[in-house]
Amino acid sequence: MQTATEENTIENRAAAFFTDLQNRICARFEEFESSARFERVPWKKDEPEDETGKRLNGSGERRLMTGSVFEKVGVNFSDVHGTFSHQFREEIPGAAESQGQFRACGISLVSHMANPFVPAVHMNVRFLQTSKSWFGGGADLTPTFPYDEDTALFHDAMKGACDSYRPDAYAEYKDYCDRYFYLPHRGEPRGVGGIFFDNLNSGDQEADFAFVRAVGEAYLDVYPKIVERRIDTSFTDEDREKLLFKRGRYVEFNLVYDRGTKFGFATGADPEAFLMSMPPIVKW
Amino acid sequence: MQTATEENTIENRAAAFFTDLQNRICARFEEFESSARFERVPWKKDEPEDETGKRLNGSGERRLMTGSVFEKVGVNFSDVHGTFSHQFREEIPGAAESQGQFRACGISLVSHMANPFVPAVHMNVRFLQTSKSWFGGGADLTPTFPYDEDTALFHDAMKGACDSYRPDAYAEYKDYCDRYFYLPHRGEPRGVGGIFFDNLNSGDQEADFAFVRAVGEAYLDVYPKIVERRIDTSFTDEDREKLLFKRGRYVEFNLVYDRGTKFGFATGADPEAFLMSMPPIVKW
Repeated sequence: MQTATEENTIENRAAAFFTDLQNRICARFEEFESSARFERVPWKKDEPEDETGKRLNGSGERRLMTGSVFEKVGVNFSDVHGTFSHQFREEIPGAAESQGQFRACGISLVSHMANPFVPAVHMNVRFLQTSKSWFGGGADLTPTFPYDEDTALFHDAMKGACDSYRPDAYAEYKDYCDRYFYLPHRGEPRGVGGIFFDNLNSGDQEADFAFVRAVGEAYLDVYPKIVERRIDTSFTDEDREKLLFKRGRYVEFNLVYDRGTKFGFATGADPEAFLMSMPPIVKW
Repeated sequence: MQTATEENTIENRAAAFFTDLQNRICARFEEFESSARFERVPWKKDEPEDETGKRLNGSGERRLMTGSVFEKVGVNFSDVHGTFSHQFREEIPGAAESQGQFRACGISLVSHMANPFVPAVHMNVRFLQTSKSWFGGGADLTPTFPYDEDTALFHDAMKGACDSYRPDAYAEYKDYCDRYFYLPHRGEPRGVGGIFFDNLNSGDQEADFAFVRAVGEAYLDVYPKIVERRIDTSFTDEDREKLLFKRGRYVEFNLVYDRGTKFGFATGADPEAFLMSMPPIVKW
């Protein structure tokens, strides 16, 4: 692949960071497991333009682990380019002006934990390019039994990343996260929040990229600390039942409200990829 | 309640049939259980008109049983009236002309079975009235391990109800069912089908109502026969696992595509009611 991917452009640097982050997160998570290891599922797409105007090329790697601590964790990297369908071009910033051409790369992570006292977690950072370009992402915690000190530790880590970027970023992205990860039909938040941001383009792309890296690093630093705190907490069948019902709410959010999932349904993506976030076992 | 509900109108007769059907279905299902019985949750709504133009009055009864044969079965009856929101009036036939006034009554049933060889089942019949009035409903089977003879028995029963109504009704409603209960993102049907119909108003309301009664009676007759056939089939842990994964598809359909569920999300209904269809335990 002696191609454009070798160039030191922002999109290539972003993709390189995401894949490196994927490697480091997976290695760190495996340290918690005595024998379980991530299964790697590399994939390639080379779909010619169809009648809707959609063309998709690129590759990625899904990594999935079923362990005794991480009951189900998916850490996916993808780097795709092509053209959006004519209909979709109208909805994506700058896509009409690029004749639908885009590139998108990112890492997406969802982890469902065996111990009900270890919170589930979601993290995603991504870069999109049409005639415009921007970063997006976020990270949030979904405990069944929230501990104030875990919530504080997680938010402090995210705040640290935000503070390095812009004084009011944390308040803004925390608020966005609270509004986004909310189940209106239940009148319940999905979890205890975190940060969420999109269409990030301040005019200083290096600063934006540095912020996204800081979020990834903060996540990689803080989540294992929370796992370590709770991993040995003993639990009853009843605690585990509560976890399974809490996961039902997670499913409701992800199938009904989550943008990534909706994007997957709308674009005919591989369900094994965009439904990676589904918990391994759930009750209602 | 010495009110309009005493009158011998089509809507009152429909409501009376639905509540009677609920009673008979629940009684029949309880015969399969040694000790489990339906829990009854009666409810009443008396919500004054809100800023969207929505007003809701009425009552109903949810019946839920957790048994050893019927792992989770909900049989809900409701009879509500009021006004639709201004926005919703545009979408419902005859609602603009009725100034949003409506009455809706029906029975809705979803059953998830403990034995993986007993198919899950859904049945719903309903009557709606605005300035127009119509029946809707259907019944379909979702086996994890389809038996051709069960599929045939179920379809024959539905065909019998349809044939008493109109020669081409079965072909039409079976086709509608196949198109509706389909998961495009999986490229899979939800189950082995049945019948599905809506906006049923042939001009002969008595004939329409007789058909809807026939569907209800056919369901009540045929489903217990299928349960009886399969109830004593022994199963392995692996069979049960397949059931739990099959239920994941059921959840995907109901949260993403099912109209009743979408209606529930859109109207701010009680999630315990419109998410009654969620299986008790599910795997992905």
